[in-house]
Amino acid sequence: MTATDDTPAPPTTTLELRSTVTDDGTVTLAMQRSELAAPGDDEVVVRVDAAPINPSDLGMMFAMADLDLAEAAGSDGLPGVAAPISPRALAEQAARLNRPMPVGNEGGGTVIDTGSSAAARGLAGKVVGFLSGNAYAQYRTLNVTQCLPMADGTNPADAAAAFVNPLTALGMVETMRAEGHSALVHTVGASNLGLMLNRLCRADGVELVNIVRRPEQAEQVRAEGASHVCVSSAEDFGDQLVDALRATGATIAFDAIGGGDLASVLLSSMERVASEQAGEFSRYGSNTLKQVYIYGGLDRGPTILRRNFGMTWAVGGWLLTPFLMKASPETTERLRRRVADEITTTFASTYGMRLSLEDVVDPEVVRRYGRMATGDKALVTPHG
Amino acid sequence: MTATDDTPAPPTTTLELRSTVTDDGTVTLAMQRSELAAPGDDEVVVRVDAAPINPSDLGMMFAMADLDLAEAAGSDGLPGVAAPISPRALAEQAARLNRPMPVGNEGGGTVIDTGSSAAARGLAGKVVGFLSGNAYAQYRTLNVTQCLPMADGTNPADAAAAFVNPLTALGMVETMRAEGHSALVHTVGASNLGLMLNRLCRADGVELVNIVRRPEQAEQVRAEGASHVCVSSAEDFGDQLVDALRATGATIAFDAIGGGDLASVLLSSMERVASEQAGEFSRYGSNTLKQVYIYGGLDRGPTILRRNFGMTWAVGGWLLTPFLMKASPETTERLRRRVADEITTTFASTYGMRLSLEDVVDPEVVRRYGRMATGDKALVTPHG
Repeated sequence: MTATDDTPAPPTTTLELRSTVTDDGTVTLAMQRSELAAPGDDEVVVRVDAAPINPSDLGMMFAMADLDLAEAAGSDGLPGVAAPISPRALAEQAARLNRPMPVGNEGGGTVIDTGSSAAARGLAGKVVGFLSGNAYAQYRTLNVTQCLPMADGTNPADAAAAFVNPLTALGMVETMRAEGHSALVHTVGASNLGLMLNRLCRADGVELVNIVRRPEQAEQVRAEGASHVCVSSAEDFGDQLVDALRATGATIAFDAIGGGDLASVLLSSMERVASEQAGEFSRYGSNTLKQVYIYGGLDRGPTILRRNFGMTWAVGGWLLTPFLMKASPETTERLRRRVADEITTTFASTYGMRLSLEDVVDPEVVRRYGRMATGDKALVTPHG
Repeated sequence: MTATDDTPAPPTTTLELRSTVTDDGTVTLAMQRSELAAPGDDEVVVRVDAAPINPSDLGMMFAMADLDLAEAAGSDGLPGVAAPISPRALAEQAARLNRPMPVGNEGGGTVIDTGSSAAARGLAGKVVGFLSGNAYAQYRTLNVTQCLPMADGTNPADAAAAFVNPLTALGMVETMRAEGHSALVHTVGASNLGLMLNRLCRADGVELVNIVRRPEQAEQVRAEGASHVCVSSAEDFGDQLVDALRATGATIAFDAIGGGDLASVLLSSMERVASEQAGEFSRYGSNTLKQVYIYGGLDRGPTILRRNFGMTWAVGGWLLTPFLMKASPETTERLRRRVADEITTTFASTYGMRLSLEDVVDPEVVRRYGRMATGDKALVTPHG
């Protein structure tokens, strides 16, 4: 314990949000008061100043529930929200049934207490980003390895999204290089992650094809310096895409939409460009490996692959955690350092709303952030 | 030239089959007489005794035409067959338009003339299997590297299918091992390739899950010693499959069907077994990589992936040629030697019909072998 006489005693409890799926087919996201553990040797206590609601948080928060039917459902004088989930979704949640799961993958805050190790004491008073899986809370006791210290003077809100999106953007470019591709496609170009990836690719001289849904999003992405932007709602989307693939040579795509035929269209468009450049006819198509990684599921419908793209193709899931687990410690450290160094530039996030913990369980507010509308991202600020 | 006085003069022409797609939307498979080149230093002339019609041959032969509409279409006194192809299929065939393409990936025969190199002369009189892409012919001039010599006394018909199915079966097991899996699924267990793979896996102690369509096929595959056979038309197919995956631990599948939801069912069944064994709940599913390789397209419809199998999955095309190109020369030589050594046991094929070159272009016969019915495989025997 390093609390000194001129700092208030560290808190011993914290308000936090937990999500519980019950066997009657309901998911309840509710506020509760919990014990806050004193820090062990290698731990620190962080006052959580801000935590984003990423698309990847919503699955644990609401288990695919129908949020149109969300209703207030507090208990013990603390607020909550409940919504029904389908029998099929319920079956997939068996492993978490009746267990109050923590929520919030990442956050940012200030270290207010530390354990006795040198690494822990080195973080005293620092602003840190952290990856914890339980960020929607007032305070958290965390291992030092979960924390990424920022330069002095960093606003804790700027540190809130230092892991998921920045490491995902970096992971996409690393994966592209490691698998022998030289340019990439991203299917949600106007998202926070998309804009971040665009800045990263510009900084690194990597060609990026941005797909956006609406023309005004294309304007926005172009205004940030993107060279290749395709509008998926446009009548000539197919031609736009082939032109951009031809110009960049992109043969790998990262897709957050998942459902529908976009992966198929990406593969057949890549194959069209590859076969233009191939010589001899082969009924198996070109020898160019065409890869689509699905890393999100904004469209929950099935992925439809028409297989009109030869035999040299692959579609698969892509997730940050396995990528980081496979990466060497040197790579991981290099990526983390870069995020900290560029947290207000390359890796800056913007938000459409700031929410208290109470707001996060307000049914009306749930419906708004549950839409995951581009430009309307939520930042949870537990201390107001 | 090593022809001696007691052998007839080597032929200078050959009857062969060629397939031509024309821009009026027709594909014509026709017999023609062509020059036969004298062998160069490293070449041999093979009398083609037998050549199988594999599913992988039909694409080049008929370009996805509607074979119900096949009609006789000979010219110059030589027989042929023509069928209409759809505008979409026509568009995909642009690179071969109006070019008479050779057909027949592989065959077996007897070396009747050789070039001057030691390698060529070493094949004189031998029975060989060969991979050439133009096997439906009376004679072929081939490079020695295209030929796999068999033990003396081998029936040339037994050498006819020494490449495509044997190397595919071996390639599947090699791929399984190289990618860290310990057991595999094959979706056309009663096919020639399926029975071959079953014998190979039994010989090598690899657990194999065979999927077949009909109960009587399951009997046949079990009679050949298969332990795990699932009938896809059975009401309890889903349970059969999960049980077999649990018993074997198979996390990779090779699928010749392609269309429909079989790949999705395989992935979700593998995930169900993997999550039974996983500890902590993760909304991203298990960390077990679940792989489906699509190597054929018996169902030409789209592949439907429901994505109810976590995030650690991959689906992709698998093809023999790229597998062999990536394999080391030592691996390739080891696999070829094994095929030659076991061509009448592990790698034996059986046929439902034997066809002359004339038969191959008979519309009624085309309709029969074009169905690719299990147990009714065709062997082309150009010399009767």
